Amino acid sequence: MSRTLVVEQSAIDTKGGAVAEELANIGVVGLAAMGASLARNLAHHGNTVAVYNRHYSRTETLINEHGDEGKFIPSKTLEEFVASLAKPRTAIIMVKAGDPTDQMINALADLMEPGDIIVDAGNAYFKDTIRREKAIRARGLHFVGCGVSGGEEGALKGPSMMPGGTEESWKTLGPILKTISAQAEGEPCVTHIGSDGAGHFVKMVHNGIEYADMQLISESYDLMRRGLGLSVDELADVFAEWNKGDLDSYLIEITAEVLRHKDAKTGKPFLDIVVDRAGMKGTGTWTVQTALSLGTPVTGIGEAVFARGLSSEADLRAEAQTKGLAGPEPEGAFSAIAADPEERAAFIEDVRQALYASKIVAYAQGFNEIEEGAKEYNWKIDLGAVARIWRGGCIIRAKFLNRISDAYDSGEQFGSLLFDPFFKAAVEGAQASWRRVVARAAEAGIPVPVFSSSLAYYDGLRSKRLPAALIQGQRDFFGAHTYGRVDEPGVFHTLWAEPGRKEIKQA
Amino acid sequence: MSRTLVVEQSAIDTKGGAVAEELANIGVVGLAAMGASLARNLAHHGNTVAVYNRHYSRTETLINEHGDEGKFIPSKTLEEFVASLAKPRTAIIMVKAGDPTDQMINALADLMEPGDIIVDAGNAYFKDTIRREKAIRARGLHFVGCGVSGGEEGALKGPSMMPGGTEESWKTLGPILKTISAQAEGEPCVTHIGSDGAGHFVKMVHNGIEYADMQLISESYDLMRRGLGLSVDELADVFAEWNKGDLDSYLIEITAEVLRHKDAKTGKPFLDIVVDRAGMKGTGTWTVQTALSLGTPVTGIGEAVFARGLSSEADLRAEAQTKGLAGPEPEGAFSAIAADPEERAAFIEDVRQALYASKIVAYAQGFNEIEEGAKEYNWKIDLGAVARIWRGGCIIRAKFLNRISDAYDSGEQFGSLLFDPFFKAAVEGAQASWRRVVARAAEAGIPVPVFSSSLAYYDGLRSKRLPAALIQGQRDFFGAHTYGRVDEPGVFHTLWAEPGRKEIKQA
Repeated sequence: MSRTLVVEQSAIDTKGGAVAEELANIGVVGLAAMGASLARNLAHHGNTVAVYNRHYSRTETLINEHGDEGKFIPSKTLEEFVASLAKPRTAIIMVKAGDPTDQMINALADLMEPGDIIVDAGNAYFKDTIRREKAIRARGLHFVGCGVSGGEEGALKGPSMMPGGTEESWKTLGPILKTISAQAEGEPCVTHIGSDGAGHFVKMVHNGIEYADMQLISESYDLMRRGLGLSVDELADVFAEWNKGDLDSYLIEITAEVLRHKDAKTGKPFLDIVVDRAGMKGTGTWTVQTALSLGTPVTGIGEAVFARGLSSEADLRAEAQTKGLAGPEPEGAFSAIAADPEERAAFIEDVRQALYASKIVAYAQGFNEIEEGAKEYNWKIDLGAVARIWRGGCIIRAKFLNRISDAYDSGEQFGSLLFDPFFKAAVEGAQASWRRVVARAAEAGIPVPVFSSSLAYYDGLRSKRLPAALIQGQRDFFGAHTYGRVDEPGVFHTLWAEPGRKEIKQA
Repeated sequence: MSRTLVVEQSAIDTKGGAVAEELANIGVVGLAAMGASLARNLAHHGNTVAVYNRHYSRTETLINEHGDEGKFIPSKTLEEFVASLAKPRTAIIMVKAGDPTDQMINALADLMEPGDIIVDAGNAYFKDTIRREKAIRARGLHFVGCGVSGGEEGALKGPSMMPGGTEESWKTLGPILKTISAQAEGEPCVTHIGSDGAGHFVKMVHNGIEYADMQLISESYDLMRRGLGLSVDELADVFAEWNKGDLDSYLIEITAEVLRHKDAKTGKPFLDIVVDRAGMKGTGTWTVQTALSLGTPVTGIGEAVFARGLSSEADLRAEAQTKGLAGPEPEGAFSAIAADPEERAAFIEDVRQALYASKIVAYAQGFNEIEEGAKEYNWKIDLGAVARIWRGGCIIRAKFLNRISDAYDSGEQFGSLLFDPFFKAAVEGAQASWRRVVARAAEAGIPVPVFSSSLAYYDGLRSKRLPAALIQGQRDFFGAHTYGRVDEPGVFHTLWAEPGRKEIKQA
């Protein structure tokens, strides 16, 4: 179908009036990479897709290059776009975050009618989504903040989708999203997460977990490359092998691919020509900032975000090289292990176990953040369903998520994934390796911030008594911040500055 | 001087009209613990102090109990209070953070005249201070956000003070604050930090460092108590001894005091009857959230805040005990070291060195956050002066801060305290111990999140190549996020999904 034909069809639709079949059942606003892919995905699955872009050239390109892939109704103006939608009109916005999103939401709302649905499928901050939902609801329309994971390819071939918003909007939107989402074991990777900002919140935590996961893989790589002296091809084999077991996941799979890739220009391993400064776009930062506000420790994600930050401090790192901060040479520290094939293989297995255990901790912390967020913002979130829709389409898709959904679907109440029998046994089985890895890394001078932070969290969680009692003692000493007693309810303060240091009960 | 007399004197002052000596040169609004202490401190140092509290009873109590300690002018209304101040009128607000502070600022501003000075000495969030300063400046008045550290005792006997605001306000306020601040080696612990929110920003980071410092002491305590099996009295001796060397500081000093204290009711060590859930009031959280926004890794402070959070999760920790998460027994793991007096002493020294090195990292990170904040918010902050005013009065006061001011005053430019020759040598000297401590803790199952996180930061900083290159490879693979090359400027992307995986230069 050529562009001209489509435009003609659109014209016919408009002339035809209220014939539902000739109107679009869904629209996409913003046809950059993600929006265009989403529109095509929708068209591939039998939807009639109204498309609009601020500059018409993008719309033309989409229709010229992909117009024959399904039914599109292009519009040159937003008015025409809205008129080309069947009621309840449902429009997905995929424009830049921030002001452009706000402007487009308002422009659409001005043209729509009560009952219509505006979907923001960008990476919005969940508090913005809560604010927008409230404003649009007040106008009688539905606003759905929808997290979409899987990048451009996911958007085209099947992403994991995390819509928030009202139950009512889900009735219209759900069947459409189910046609385009990824499928995992026969189930669509989309579910109604909860009201207003719940979808964007869950997407944010998804990204935070992704940061931890990527950092853990990088720490594993570093230990085996700088420590054991493995080549990139040997490492690609290790990761490909790991991908057959507990760690089976998209990120492990692509790690093997990236490791094996050689730079065409130099013939060197690709990784050796890449600048080692990790970029980021903000969702990891939000995840940690939000967890801090909620009082939920997400140490693995926090260390992963900070590790990217440190890697990007080019001047600081260059100065460290000039100044020559002393420390052990990883290669030397690992020479005995590296030289003995058995010990080498055993250490590789230790690293695999450490990665597995730390990954479980990162997910446990992330799911706790979702639980705390749900309490704070009054969302009813089915954690088992969240794990299920992450099994396909998204960056952290992994076999492992089946076990998480099993845990949450079991109906048992537990405060941490680490208490679920499967994960408890997994971590307990891995911990001797995990401890060896953290210890060897510290001695060899290889930074493993997420391995060690996750282990500290596990040991903190299982400690019967923590030294926080000393912190309480210090706080009461210098600031009269009071403390609790283990043997009596109440709030106590010791008169530290007075002779006898008498204790007084304050409440 | 009785209350009646003072009130009469006030009445005479009012009648006396414009006689400058009879007016107050400074006023305090809000006479709870901190405000009353500050007012008394001001009066002790020759200031005539106007005092006002929303409920007059607090004012009465202050005058009845402490009216004879200096010159106070009490007022029953805010109008009288403002009238009792000499020009430029200077009023310090010490009321609850948030709305009450905003209301009081506005009420005062309504009664004041251009050139007058309103000081908020509470623990305000620095962005609120920036907002308030802007609003008050627009009305022709000065607004100074002033960080005050040292608790109630500091407020009374000499706090460390961190005022922001204009240079002009500092001309009036500086001489007054210098009379009441702590003194360290003959210098007052107060300096003009920078414009608008700079003072509260620096106070926030001060508190963040305090969190890290306290957590490090707690980790040291835990290793020696649960690991080596030292008694609280032996531990008190260890900390008292440490307080004579590099670690000489208020927090180490009070740690020995708290350790030695016995509970009157049970005769048990005080620490054993204290509930091991650490409270917090938000400044640590702000420090980490702000660092995340600035992109500055403050891993030590982050882990310290999360460690307090974990300690406070009562239900989660109780469930962990019920479920019995497996792990090594610290006592068993340390039995050989604990049994040999020489090894035991050596490990205690290892812990001291680990604490020293980790503390240096925490300060290096905190000072980096101040530098980044200064860049972001256009403040000129003298980091050497910040270290100097922290030497007395405040909770983190320490001998160690002389070394930090020496480093920044040296005139040498460096991106991290870790590059200063003194601290570089200190960390390099400590690192073998530090690594042993992190390794032994991991093996023994004792959580040392700040020790290990600080070590990972040090090793990350000194790494010539970081595995962030792998993260960049993954990001380019799944999201076309692009990467840099080490051998050519530009922005590159590899066409991962196409045969040959060609690299294209995008910019």
